[in-house]
Amino acid sequence: MKKQAIGFIGAGNLAMPIINNLIESGYDLYCYNRTREKLQSVEGKVTIGNNIREVCDHTTIIFSLIADDPGLRKICLSEGGLTSCMKPGTIHVSMSTVSPAIAAELEATHQQKGFTYIASPIMGRPEAAAAKKLGICIAGETIAKESVKEILPEMGAAAVYDFGEKAASANVAKLGINFMIAAAMETISEVFDMVNANGVKPEEFYAMAAQNLFNCPIYKNYGEIILAKKFDTPQFYARLGLKDMILVNEAAEIKEINMPLGKVLKTNYQKVVDMGLGEKDWAVLAVAANGE
Amino acid sequence: MKKQAIGFIGAGNLAMPIINNLIESGYDLYCYNRTREKLQSVEGKVTIGNNIREVCDHTTIIFSLIADDPGLRKICLSEGGLTSCMKPGTIHVSMSTVSPAIAAELEATHQQKGFTYIASPIMGRPEAAAAKKLGICIAGETIAKESVKEILPEMGAAAVYDFGEKAASANVAKLGINFMIAAAMETISEVFDMVNANGVKPEEFYAMAAQNLFNCPIYKNYGEIILAKKFDTPQFYARLGLKDMILVNEAAEIKEINMPLGKVLKTNYQKVVDMGLGEKDWAVLAVAANGE
Repeated sequence: MKKQAIGFIGAGNLAMPIINNLIESGYDLYCYNRTREKLQSVEGKVTIGNNIREVCDHTTIIFSLIADDPGLRKICLSEGGLTSCMKPGTIHVSMSTVSPAIAAELEATHQQKGFTYIASPIMGRPEAAAAKKLGICIAGETIAKESVKEILPEMGAAAVYDFGEKAASANVAKLGINFMIAAAMETISEVFDMVNANGVKPEEFYAMAAQNLFNCPIYKNYGEIILAKKFDTPQFYARLGLKDMILVNEAAEIKEINMPLGKVLKTNYQKVVDMGLGEKDWAVLAVAANGE
Repeated sequence: MKKQAIGFIGAGNLAMPIINNLIESGYDLYCYNRTREKLQSVEGKVTIGNNIREVCDHTTIIFSLIADDPGLRKICLSEGGLTSCMKPGTIHVSMSTVSPAIAAELEATHQQKGFTYIASPIMGRPEAAAAKKLGICIAGETIAKESVKEILPEMGAAAVYDFGEKAASANVAKLGINFMIAAAMETISEVFDMVNANGVKPEEFYAMAAQNLFNCPIYKNYGEIILAKKFDTPQFYARLGLKDMILVNEAAEIKEINMPLGKVLKTNYQKVVDMGLGEKDWAVLAVAANGE
């Protein structure tokens, strides 16, 4: 017997392993994606809706995982979008990395219309989702949040971090983490260039750093990716890195906070996107300063 | 019976626990420091020289740990300095964090005069020295280097990283590490300010980051120091942070390497030093952006 019905909007790189985890766990899944072909691999294992309404008709908890603010706004507020189709009382769990501002706005819109908006952005790449090693931030109304928390481990969460009652707080935390990751990549890139130009092999320098003071997943993984210049198998696109660094800078500017490193990261992601590298892995940031 | 005679020049925060480790290991130590009082705690356990010559007369391996390039230049090249007093064939092990340029220059000067200059800058704070958990970079002439490597664990090295035959390479690597540490502190400082201004408690955000993707000594230690604003018990001075970031930028500029983050770090250390915070712990970088 199948478990409860769950809706899922989106079918990107990160969504697919999560959908597969939910299938394995026996959920009755209703999926929708604007480009239906992206759901091909799960055809027959889930019900694929022709539109958002066909998902809403069968579910009272719907997850969405969308690339950016405009995309999320569209699936929520456009004609035939979630807030015009969901059944009363439905919980919408928004897993996208979006601005705190849109999270606050959509939380209010949902509430006004009798829905609950929970923010639960994801930390981790598709391979971590497949291995159920994701970290997930969560924030929003307490009762709805507790029922969401029961499902997250089956989606691939190894750890769930609760940031309270305001949905936007989860997005603030997620942006903070993405800023830290991008900052680590910028650090690695600059130091590799500096030591290399001064006669020290980056791989020897890196072995020392990753073995000792910087012995943690981010430095180990991205250090290896940058050393090997493995930018062609994107797990997270550089154009999304640019999007996130723009969001980080906006979140700082709106509160008059100085982030000089935040500005460097936005500038350098703009540079790699302008170089036509937006579809590469976001570690391609490494070529912003001194080229390939 | 005492082990071999060893010279040690310098008596700063990091030198003292190293000297104590050598005493415990039974070496016959000849120490010198410009300010003799700083050696008070080891009086009776080591021979304290009145000048550099009195150290040179008794030893053929001399370690030095000095704050900066001018200080190192002085103890090496001034009248009564090492290169005018050392016995032929003496190995001078320079543990200071100095520029690759001065390391290359002094290596040549030593060689011309029949001495060997080994660079072995230290990674770690005084408490790590006391606990024998230091990382030490080393580079220079192979045979001399091997004899130095036998002593380093007794000085407090848990790990020794060999960067080859050119002394300057060890300094390049050390500057790279200090750049990475300062970059991590800048990252932590900026993200704490950003999340805090947007309604997320830095300590909750930090618990997530340090438990997961950034679970390594640098982020854990400096995250706690910055959260608690523990800048008044300096293990490494902010003014030395400025000195090191100037050296990093010079090493990059000399090779025409772009380091935008390097520039941010130099600017912000200059700012805290200008604010009169040069004698605080270098984690005081955290106040550069948005004040205390």
